[in-house]
Amino acid sequence: MDINNINSDDYSLADFAGYKGEDLFEVKEAFWNFYQDAIAKGYMIYGNPISSAPVAEFNAYDRFQDHERKFLNFCSYNYLGYSFHPEVIKTVQETLARYGTGAVSAPLLSGYYDLTKKLENAIARFKDKEDAIVFSTGYGANLGTLSCLLKPGDIAVLDILSHASIHDGARLAGAEIKIFSHNNAEHLERILQSINTKRAIVCIEGIYSMDGDMVNLPDIVAVCKKYGARILLDEAHSTLIFGENGRGVAEHFGLEDQIDISIGTFSKSFGALGGFAAGDKKLITYLRMFARSYVFSCAIAPHTAAGILKIIELYQHDKSHRDQLWKNTSYMQSKLKEAGLDTGGTESQIIPVIIGSDKKLRKISKIIYDKGLYTGVVTYPAVSSKRTRLRLSMSSYHTQEQMDKCVAIIKETIDSNP
Amino acid sequence: MDINNINSDDYSLADFAGYKGEDLFEVKEAFWNFYQDAIAKGYMIYGNPISSAPVAEFNAYDRFQDHERKFLNFCSYNYLGYSFHPEVIKTVQETLARYGTGAVSAPLLSGYYDLTKKLENAIARFKDKEDAIVFSTGYGANLGTLSCLLKPGDIAVLDILSHASIHDGARLAGAEIKIFSHNNAEHLERILQSINTKRAIVCIEGIYSMDGDMVNLPDIVAVCKKYGARILLDEAHSTLIFGENGRGVAEHFGLEDQIDISIGTFSKSFGALGGFAAGDKKLITYLRMFARSYVFSCAIAPHTAAGILKIIELYQHDKSHRDQLWKNTSYMQSKLKEAGLDTGGTESQIIPVIIGSDKKLRKISKIIYDKGLYTGVVTYPAVSSKRTRLRLSMSSYHTQEQMDKCVAIIKETIDSNP
Repeated sequence: MDINNINSDDYSLADFAGYKGEDLFEVKEAFWNFYQDAIAKGYMIYGNPISSAPVAEFNAYDRFQDHERKFLNFCSYNYLGYSFHPEVIKTVQETLARYGTGAVSAPLLSGYYDLTKKLENAIARFKDKEDAIVFSTGYGANLGTLSCLLKPGDIAVLDILSHASIHDGARLAGAEIKIFSHNNAEHLERILQSINTKRAIVCIEGIYSMDGDMVNLPDIVAVCKKYGARILLDEAHSTLIFGENGRGVAEHFGLEDQIDISIGTFSKSFGALGGFAAGDKKLITYLRMFARSYVFSCAIAPHTAAGILKIIELYQHDKSHRDQLWKNTSYMQSKLKEAGLDTGGTESQIIPVIIGSDKKLRKISKIIYDKGLYTGVVTYPAVSSKRTRLRLSMSSYHTQEQMDKCVAIIKETIDSNP
Repeated sequence: MDINNINSDDYSLADFAGYKGEDLFEVKEAFWNFYQDAIAKGYMIYGNPISSAPVAEFNAYDRFQDHERKFLNFCSYNYLGYSFHPEVIKTVQETLARYGTGAVSAPLLSGYYDLTKKLENAIARFKDKEDAIVFSTGYGANLGTLSCLLKPGDIAVLDILSHASIHDGARLAGAEIKIFSHNNAEHLERILQSINTKRAIVCIEGIYSMDGDMVNLPDIVAVCKKYGARILLDEAHSTLIFGENGRGVAEHFGLEDQIDISIGTFSKSFGALGGFAAGDKKLITYLRMFARSYVFSCAIAPHTAAGILKIIELYQHDKSHRDQLWKNTSYMQSKLKEAGLDTGGTESQIIPVIIGSDKKLRKISKIIYDKGLYTGVVTYPAVSSKRTRLRLSMSSYHTQEQMDKCVAIIKETIDSNP
């Protein structure tokens, strides 16, 4: 790479993740040159500051036009709209007045509040586990849990589409990472057969975040049980969405008691920030003392706990937001397919629209952005370089008109840029 | 270890951090037995749920007495009392009403708000750097920055008392970790001399969190410059406290322009949750695209950003909280010394009271707790097993009466338990 002469068309982000120059900071010079060229070509539509709540139409700053304008938002994880639910806001405001803005301590010292404890108990009950531990981020939940339980030389067996936080947790532990093909229980079995240890954990997700498809839980659980491997299931995108009671994909399959560690996040349907691990009491007690992202982070604020507790209460009495989300999801999936678009194997509110190469995605996503539609833009290395994509996040508050407009913009853009 | 027959007096927490049984979950059984025995002996005073704001006297649940009672609080990082400042609370409440409870997306997608950008700009200006990036936790700031910049085989040179997040960041990167004696520039020089690479970073802290002493910045900077090593300075506990403008220990020494990466947190003096890295524009741009704890975490909430912005504004017009903190700190340091207690080498609002062995600390800390004083209880492996300690966090809102009571409780307890 001639770092002073970079044509962004010739490189992907992956080229800069592992770049190792003579000096530690050379990479920032290289990436800066890539970045400036990419902006000049109109490619960098990441990180635009948004200036309103994450509703279906929001305002965001446009770097290219150098002003704020309106966008149709299909990019927030606010699946059920709880982040702006009036009763949730009111509860958080009231708790702020009583407890202040933060926990101002790590949980083991003085950062653990009665509301945090109530939240942990509520999550344990909700997930039908003995206990739960609340982390300050969802990333920290996987990172802390895996890096705590796995010791150097242990084996983490990951679905190839596992989230970065799962990879990082296994890596931080110094564990050996083995990867199985996406959702492929037979491949998983061959790996478990070959390793012959009880110091292994299989990590899977309820709904995979880049494809929106569901874990093949019955087959994967059967294989894990056969070989005595532990199971960590991350329900970041499926909690409150799947299962009769909203407990997730494990409930959907009736396999909750087979899951050793149930991971979740508060930054998707719960509209807040934080994550959790639920499991048996002894496991959670161990994590509380040794999971480093928990022990060495400030705890979540009491007001955050209060807001999530309010959502759990609201949800138990009224699942109409979820019903509406599923109506919107079905409608959108059909409309996109009718339009001849490739939505992969989605089975959820996460709907990818496969574009193809990185270069094509850059072009298409910029046009769509210019037309005022805000979607996820997922490129290599997050997904295969041949299946880069737009990613739509559905919500209960999208109207039919907004969905129709979204489909129309994507279709006309792809049709006129074959 | 006979895991079914554990006398907690014979073990420390460190024995369970690295424990590796035949089965992945054996450790939780072992630790559970330690834990139950320790509770029966009155040792486990961690993680008591607190049921009021982190003011100087708060209510917390007492596990042993099975009810809530009042404690004198010398354990929160709420150094300047901003977590319950009325104007900060009001700003956060208003922003909640406008933006909702969370960012509900990762920063590169739709989780970056105008208020986040304003906060990053304000932090950059405040730290006199070109740019800054805001992480969702302080732990994530060190973890993400180091694991992004360092590649496998690079060298991280850490002060032995560096925070866990610094260790974890270097470890996650797959870097080689070299440790120098605390604050010892000569030892650091011998290490830098021996490695002969420009792919090394030296990690230090403004104020060390377990001892409250200050980094020997002039000597350490001189050595780093001599050998071309990069410098990361974590000012978690020193921001808003040290330096004429509150920018930290680097400002105190007039060495701000020598620091490549300035790390900070929002969960101490800023009373919130989150962290930041400040540095030159190219560096921060690189981190924004590749720091995994940033890219793969939900962004901080707009209301969190708004509260911190308000604090920066308040602070620039009125430093009386800081003046009062320093008055209280000086008073407390003198009183503890007058009482003949060993406060180590503290130079800040963090004041350790060295107790000695783990066993002695367990006894002393329980009596102090029973007497209604809440302090940090810092044991091996966080500190040397011969210098375990109580740790006092001073704040601007402690009264002289409260400080006198704190000293009296500690003194009478130590005197009657030699």
